[in-house]
Amino acid sequence: MKIAVIGGGSTYTPELIKGLLEIQDDVSIDSVWLCDVEEGQTKLEIIFEFVKRLVKERFKVFKTLKPEEALMDTDFVVFQFRPGFLKGRELDESLPLKYDLIGQETTGMGGFSSALRAFPIVEKYIDLVEKHSKATVINFTNPSGHVTEFVLNYLKFERFIGLCNVPINLLKNISEILNCDMDDIFLKYYGLNHLTFLERIYVKDKDVTEEVFERVNVNPSNIPITDFPKWLISSLSMFLNPYLRYYLMRETMLKKIKEKELRAREVMKIEKELLDIYKKAEEIPPELSKRGGSMYSTAAAHLIRDLVKGSGRVHILNTRNEGAISNLPDDYVLEIPCYVRGGKVFPISMGEADEFALAFIHVIKMYERLTIKAYLNRSKDYALKAILIHPLGPGVEKAREFLEDMLSANKGWIDLE
Amino acid sequence: MKIAVIGGGSTYTPELIKGLLEIQDDVSIDSVWLCDVEEGQTKLEIIFEFVKRLVKERFKVFKTLKPEEALMDTDFVVFQFRPGFLKGRELDESLPLKYDLIGQETTGMGGFSSALRAFPIVEKYIDLVEKHSKATVINFTNPSGHVTEFVLNYLKFERFIGLCNVPINLLKNISEILNCDMDDIFLKYYGLNHLTFLERIYVKDKDVTEEVFERVNVNPSNIPITDFPKWLISSLSMFLNPYLRYYLMRETMLKKIKEKELRAREVMKIEKELLDIYKKAEEIPPELSKRGGSMYSTAAAHLIRDLVKGSGRVHILNTRNEGAISNLPDDYVLEIPCYVRGGKVFPISMGEADEFALAFIHVIKMYERLTIKAYLNRSKDYALKAILIHPLGPGVEKAREFLEDMLSANKGWIDLE
Amino acid sequence: MKIAVIGGGSTYTPELIKGLLEIQDDVSIDSVWLCDVEEGQTKLEIIFEFVKRLVKERFKVFKTLKPEEALMDTDFVVFQFRPGFLKGRELDESLPLKYDLIGQETTGMGGFSSALRAFPIVEKYIDLVEKHSKATVINFTNPSGHVTEFVLNYLKFERFIGLCNVPINLLKNISEILNCDMDDIFLKYYGLNHLTFLERIYVKDKDVTEEVFERVNVNPSNIPITDFPKWLISSLSMFLNPYLRYYLMRETMLKKIKEKELRAREVMKIEKELLDIYKKAEEIPPELSKRGGSMYSTAAAHLIRDLVKGSGRVHILNTRNEGAISNLPDDYVLEIPCYVRGGKVFPISMGEADEFALAFIHVIKMYERLTIKAYLNRSKDYALKAILIHPLGPGVEKAREFLEDMLSANKGWIDLE
Amino acid sequence: MKIAVIGGGSTYTPELIKGLLEIQDDVSIDSVWLCDVEEGQTKLEIIFEFVKRLVKERFKVFKTLKPEEALMDTDFVVFQFRPGFLKGRELDESLPLKYDLIGQETTGMGGFSSALRAFPIVEKYIDLVEKHSKATVINFTNPSGHVTEFVLNYLKFERFIGLCNVPINLLKNISEILNCDMDDIFLKYYGLNHLTFLERIYVKDKDVTEEVFERVNVNPSNIPITDFPKWLISSLSMFLNPYLRYYLMRETMLKKIKEKELRAREVMKIEKELLDIYKKAEEIPPELSKRGGSMYSTAAAHLIRDLVKGSGRVHILNTRNEGAISNLPDDYVLEIPCYVRGGKVFPISMGEADEFALAFIHVIKMYERLTIKAYLNRSKDYALKAILIHPLGPGVEKAREFLEDMLSANKGWIDLE
Repeated sequence: MKIAVIGGGSTYTPELIKGLLEIQDDVSIDSVWLCDVEEGQTKLEIIFEFVKRLVKERFKVFKTLKPEEALMDTDFVVFQFRPGFLKGRELDESLPLKYDLIGQETTGMGGFSSALRAFPIVEKYIDLVEKHSKATVINFTNPSGHVTEFVLNYLKFERFIGLCNVPINLLKNISEILNCDMDDIFLKYYGLNHLTFLERIYVKDKDVTEEVFERVNVNPSNIPITDFPKWLISSLSMFLNPYLRYYLMRETMLKKIKEKELRAREVMKIEKELLDIYKKAEEIPPELSKRGGSMYSTAAAHLIRDLVKGSGRVHILNTRNEGAISNLPDDYVLEIPCYVRGGKVFPISMGEADEFALAFIHVIKMYERLTIKAYLNRSKDYALKAILIHPLGPGVEKAREFLEDMLSANKGWIDLE
Repeated sequence: MKIAVIGGGSTYTPELIKGLLEIQDDVSIDSVWLCDVEEGQTKLEIIFEFVKRLVKERFKVFKTLKPEEALMDTDFVVFQFRPGFLKGRELDESLPLKYDLIGQETTGMGGFSSALRAFPIVEKYIDLVEKHSKATVINFTNPSGHVTEFVLNYLKFERFIGLCNVPINLLKNISEILNCDMDDIFLKYYGLNHLTFLERIYVKDKDVTEEVFERVNVNPSNIPITDFPKWLISSLSMFLNPYLRYYLMRETMLKKIKEKELRAREVMKIEKELLDIYKKAEEIPPELSKRGGSMYSTAAAHLIRDLVKGSGRVHILNTRNEGAISNLPDDYVLEIPCYVRGGKVFPISMGEADEFALAFIHVIKMYERLTIKAYLNRSKDYALKAILIHPLGPGVEKAREFLEDMLSANKGWIDLE
Repeated sequence: MKIAVIGGGSTYTPELIKGLLEIQDDVSIDSVWLCDVEEGQTKLEIIFEFVKRLVKERFKVFKTLKPEEALMDTDFVVFQFRPGFLKGRELDESLPLKYDLIGQETTGMGGFSSALRAFPIVEKYIDLVEKHSKATVINFTNPSGHVTEFVLNYLKFERFIGLCNVPINLLKNISEILNCDMDDIFLKYYGLNHLTFLERIYVKDKDVTEEVFERVNVNPSNIPITDFPKWLISSLSMFLNPYLRYYLMRETMLKKIKEKELRAREVMKIEKELLDIYKKAEEIPPELSKRGGSMYSTAAAHLIRDLVKGSGRVHILNTRNEGAISNLPDDYVLEIPCYVRGGKVFPISMGEADEFALAFIHVIKMYERLTIKAYLNRSKDYALKAILIHPLGPGVEKAREFLEDMLSANKGWIDLE
Repeated sequence: MKIAVIGGGSTYTPELIKGLLEIQDDVSIDSVWLCDVEEGQTKLEIIFEFVKRLVKERFKVFKTLKPEEALMDTDFVVFQFRPGFLKGRELDESLPLKYDLIGQETTGMGGFSSALRAFPIVEKYIDLVEKHSKATVINFTNPSGHVTEFVLNYLKFERFIGLCNVPINLLKNISEILNCDMDDIFLKYYGLNHLTFLERIYVKDKDVTEEVFERVNVNPSNIPITDFPKWLISSLSMFLNPYLRYYLMRETMLKKIKEKELRAREVMKIEKELLDIYKKAEEIPPELSKRGGSMYSTAAAHLIRDLVKGSGRVHILNTRNEGAISNLPDDYVLEIPCYVRGGKVFPISMGEADEFALAFIHVIKMYERLTIKAYLNRSKDYALKAILIHPLGPGVEKAREFLEDMLSANKGWIDLE
C-alpha cells in the first residue's frame, strides 16, 4: 500500500506518520511519499529526514517535488497543503479587520479568500490523482468542508473525504467526561465543517445527552477562547461547534481578535521553532501541541485503517448528505457520522435537523456554492453574491471595495473578472 | 355573497369597499360586514357611515363588534386588523433601536414582536371562521407571510391566502415602463413576503428582463427610500424587494430610521386627518394615498372576483410552495404566482431559485418557524433561537436582555415563559 | 414565422394545415415546410398539392426531402413521422399476439418495439433541430410520452413538448355533457401519455366532478371499445384513460384484438382511400375522421398560437413534472395541465396523486427508462429488464424468446446486442 | 429485563427461547412471558412446559392469556401470532387458486387477505403495548413488512421493527460460499419484505459481487423451489428474493402450487408432530427445521442483544427508508441494512435503487397503502383499488367476485363495507 501526502513538508507530517505507524499492524503500508512545492523545499528536507528517523524502516519514505511521482498508482492521498502559505493566511486574518469584519482562516471573509486560493490548486491535484491512480483522497486542506463541496459536487470526483479534527476531539472530550471508551459513544451530530451541531449523545444503549451537554468544551487552539454563556446551551439544548462563536457573538469575537496577535503570525513563530527542533528530534516533540490540530493524525490514520479493513466502524466525515439529515437536500456536503465499510463511506440516517441549525447550514451552503461558481466562472458578480449573503460579510455599502482590496492583495492566487 | 372584514374600522376599509364596488358587475355581492373590537368602536362608526355613502345601496353594509355575527355563513373573510393597534407598531419600531437593531413593522425584531402579538388573535379568528362558515380568508394582517405560514402549516386551516400590495405595484410599475397592459406581464418572482426576488419578466411571448431590470423601482411608502446602487442590480441580475435593503444595507437603513420620525407616529397623524375627512367625505379622498398600501383594494377585489368567476388569471399570492420552486421544500409558504381557478389557488412551477435568494428565504423561514413554535409552546427558548438566527437580530451578548425588554413592553399581548 | 413538419407526407397533414389557417389571424405564419423521407415521396407529393389548394396562398408551403432545409431557422417543428411506417405498426400489433400478449401501437409490447424504432430517428432529428434553429418542437410521434421522456431527460433538449389528442377530446366531451365552453373547464388530470387519471373537474368556480364522472366517455378510434363497468368508476372515483383497459381488463381486450382485423391494416386501407380523395379534394374530406386523431390539429395549432401570443391559457401537455404532482419525482415526464406563457410551458401544481394512479405511473415510467437505456446502451439486458417489469410483458419463461423474435422482425430498425 | 411474546404458544417459541439463552451472557434477561389466546391454550401449555425444561431457571418463564399482564412494564415485545390461525392461512392459499391467482401466505391475493386479518389484531396489541409499557416491538407476524408499514406510518407507533429470516439466511449462505465470517459481509440490499433486491456484496474492503451472484441460492422452505434461469441473474446483475418468482414466473409457480399440497396443510401436520415431540423433549428436536423459519431465533435474539448493548452492529430490518435509498420516498417502510445503536435503528445510506427494483417496490407499496386504507376506512372501494393494481391480482372482470368471495370466507375476521 502506497500513501501520498500532498503538502508533505508541513510541520504536521511527523504526527501523521506517527498515526500511520500505529496502524501498521492492521494495515500493511509499503511506502509513504511526501510531496511539496519548490517554495517548501527546505522545509520538506527537514521533515523528510526527521520522518525517516521516526519510521525506522518500518515502511519506506520518499520525498519529491513531482506530484506525478507521488501519485502514481497510489492507494491513498492526503491533502494537507496550504494554498498561499502562511502569508496567505496572514492576509485572510488581517484584511477583513480593516472593514470591521472577522478575519479567520476558515470562517467569514478570511475563509472566503482562503477558499478561492484553494480551488485552482485542488482542481489541479484532483486531475493528477484521477490520471495517475485509483486512490481515495483524504482532505485536510482548509476550508475542508468547502473544498469537499467543490470536489464532490463540482469536480464530480467521488473518492474524496473531508476530514477535520473537531469531531474526534469532541468524542475524546465526551469520553473523558463520562469516563467511557470513545468507541462506545454515538452522536447525532451534523452540519458543515466548523459549523456543526450536536443534538444527542448515546453511550451504548443510553441517551446521556442531558448530563453531558453543559460540560462539553472543545476549543481548537487556533481560535480565541470565548465561552458561550451557560443559558445559551440550555436554551438551545444542543452543543455548538466553537466556530459558531463568530456568528453568535460577533462583536465579542471581533474585539478579541483585534486584541491578540494574528494567529498566522503565532503559527509562523511556532513553525520556526518546530523546524529547529525537528532537525535533531527522534520523537514527536511536545511543542507540536501548540501548533493546533490535536488528534489530526489519529483521525486520518484510523480512517485509512477502517477503509482498508472494512470492519464497520463509524467516523464523522465530510461527505454528501444522501438522506442522513432528512430535511436537507441529498447533495449538500455535510459533516456527519458515516459507516465505513467495503472501502466506502455510507452516511447514517439521523432524521431531521433543528431549525436553528438549518438556518446556518443553508445560508453558508449557499455562500459556499456561490463562491465555487465565482471561481468556476472567474466571476466577480458571483463573488459579490457570495459575500453579500454571508452573515459575516460586508453590506452593499462596502462589498465592492472589500472585494477589490482582497483580489489585489491575493494577486496571482485568485483571478476573477 | 357575503363578505366579512375583520378590522373593518381600518382607514383602509373605504378603499377596499371601492374595490368591491368595481367587481360588483362580475360578482354579485349581497352584504359586507365590518367587524372590529370595542377599542375601535368610534373609528368603526365613522368608517361605517362613510362606506354607506360610498356604496349607495349597491350592496348592504353592516357593522358589528361580534365576530360570530360577521362570520356566520360568510363566503369571504378579509383579515386587516392590527394586533396591538398603532401603539403596538410604535413599540415594534422604537424598542429595537435601543439595541441598535432595525425597528420595522414587518421586518427584523419589529416584525418579531408584531408576529407574536398577531398569532393568538389570528388563532382565535380562524377558530371562529371554521366554526361559523366555509369561507376563504384573504389576509392583510402583518406580517402577512408569517401569519400565512402559521395558519397553513400550524393551524392547518387550508382556505387561507396571504396578500400583499408589493406584487401588484411591481406589475403596475413594469406596465408603465413598458407601456403595456398589466395582464400581459408574467414574472418569475418568488420568496417570502417582503423578501422577494424577481428573476425574469415576460411580456406576451418575449423575455424583456434585461431592458426592464434597472428601471424598476417600487417603494412602499412605509419604508425610508434608499436606492440600491446600480452595480448591485446588474451584479445580481435580479430585482430585489425594497425590504431587502434592511438586510443588505443595514447600517445605512438604521441611520435613516433613526433620523426620521417613527412611521407609526406619522401614521397616527395621517389616520387622525383621514378620519376627520371621512366624517364628511362622499368619495375616497386623495389624502389616503399617504397612508401607504397603494392598490391594496385592487389586489383583494380582483382576487375575490377571480376566485368566484374561475376565469383562470394569475395572481401573486402567499401560499404553500408545492413544487413551484423546485429547490425549496413543498411546505414553505412563499409569495409566488398562482393560477386562480375553481375557487382555488394553484402555484405555477417556475424551476429553481437562485442561491442568493435561497440564503435569505431559508434563514427567514427558519426564523418564522421558531417564532411560531415560541408562541405555540409559550417558550422563551424558542424565541431566543428565533432571534439568534435572524440576520437583523441581536447577538448572544444582548439577546436575553432584548427579549425580556420586548416582553415586558408587550405585556398582555405576548405571553412566553 | 416558419413551421417545419417532419413527417409532412402524413395523411394528417391537411388537418394540421387547417388548424394553422385558423390561427393565422392571431399569429402571422410565413411558411410551412413539409419534410418527409424518400420512401414517402409519392405520398408527400399528393399531400403537398392538396395542401396548396387548401392554403390558397394565405402562407407559403414548401416540400422537401432534406430536413436541413425544412429546419433552417424555423420557429416551430412538428414531429409526426411514423418510424418504420405502417409496416412497423403492423409488426407491433401482430407479433405480441403470438405470445398471448397485447399488440398495440403505443401500449405494452407493441409500444416497446415502436419506441425502440423511434429513438434513433428522434435523436437524429433533434440533432438537426439544435444545429439549424432555435425552434420549439411539438411532438406527435408515438409513443409520444415515451419519446418526450427520452428527449427531455436523456437527450437534454429542452424545447420539446409532447402532445396527444386525448386531453382535448376529453375537454370537448365534458363541455358537451355540461353544455359549457371548453375554456371554462379546469381538470386535475395527470399521468403518463395514454395512462392518465382524471380526479377532479372544475367549471368556473364549481367542482362538478361527481355529476360528470359516470357520463364521460372518450374513445380514440384506434382501440377496440370495451366499456369499463359502472361500478369501477364509482369505486375508483376517477376517470381512466381508455388505454387503461389494456391493463385492467387484459383478457377481454386481448380477446377483442384477436377477433378484429389489425388496426394497422385498417389504417393502410383508410390511407389508400384518403390519398385517392386528396388527389382531387379542395376541402378536408369527412373520410379523414375514420383515421383517428380527432382534434389533433386543433391541439397543435392552439398550442402554437398560445406559445406565440403568451396570453396565459392552460394546455394539457407532456413535460417534466417539476412539482405539479407533489408525490412524484420532479423529473418524470408527465401529461399535465400547463400554463403557457412567455413562449414557455409552466406546469401547474395540483397536489398529490392517488395511490391507484401512482402504481401505474411508477411502473411504466421505470419501463420507459429501462427501454431508453436499452437503446442508449444498445443492450439486450436493459431490454429484458424493461419487458420483465411491464405488466403487459412476458414472464421470465418467454421473455428472451419474445425479445429475439421482435429484434429479428425489426432488423435494420432496432439494433441491440 | 422483561420480554413478552405475543403468540407465545407458537411451535417456534422454543427456538426463540434458545436464542434468548444464547444472549443471556451479554444481556441479563429476568423474565419471558408467553402470551396467547384462548383458542391456543392447550398448545400454550405444552410449549410452556417444554420451554421451562429448556431454560432450567436461567431466567423466569410465565404463561398468560391476559396480554395486559405480559405487556406490563415489559422492555421488549415479540409479535409472532398468526391472525386467523392455520385455518386462515389455508384460505389464503386455496381461495385465490379458484380464480387462477397465486395463493400464498404473504404474497399476492393470499397476502392480501392475510394482511386484512392481521391489521385489527395488530392495532389492538399496539394499543396495549403503548398503554402498559415503553417497550420496543419486534415483529414476525406476517405479512411482516406490510404490518410494519401499517404500524409506523398509520398507527404512528415508532418503536416497531419488522424482522424476517430471509436476510440472515442470505448472509449465512454468502458466508458459506465465501468461507468467511457473517460479520465481515456488508450488502447493498433493499426492497420490501419478501420483495428484495441484492445489488452488491462487500467482504471487508472488497467488492465480491460478481463472484458470488450466480452461486447464491436461498429458498425459504415455504415456497415451491423453482430456479430462476442462469441468464436472468446475469442479465439483471442482481440477486432476487425467492418470492419474486411469483411475479416473474407466475405461470410456472401457479402450476407448481396447484400440483403440491397446500403449505398450510403440511404445516398443520408438522405442528401436530412437533407438539407431540415437545411434550417430552428436553432439547430442540431436529424436526423443527421442517417448520421453516430457519435462523429466525438468531435474528431476533441478536437484534435484542444489539439494541441493549448498543455495540454498533448492522442488521437488515424493516423500517422507514429515511434516505437510505435516495430515489424512494423517506416514509416508505423498506427492508434495509440499519446501524443498531443507542437502543435505536438508523438506516444506512446506500444511494439509488435500480429501475427494475423500483417498479416492484412502488407498485407493491401502493398496494400496501390501499389495503391499509381499506382496513382503516372499512372500505371495499379501497380494497378493489388495492387488488386491481396488484400484479398478481384479478382483472376488472373478476375483481368484485373475488373480493366478495374472500370476504365471506373470512367473515368475523375481515369486515369491509
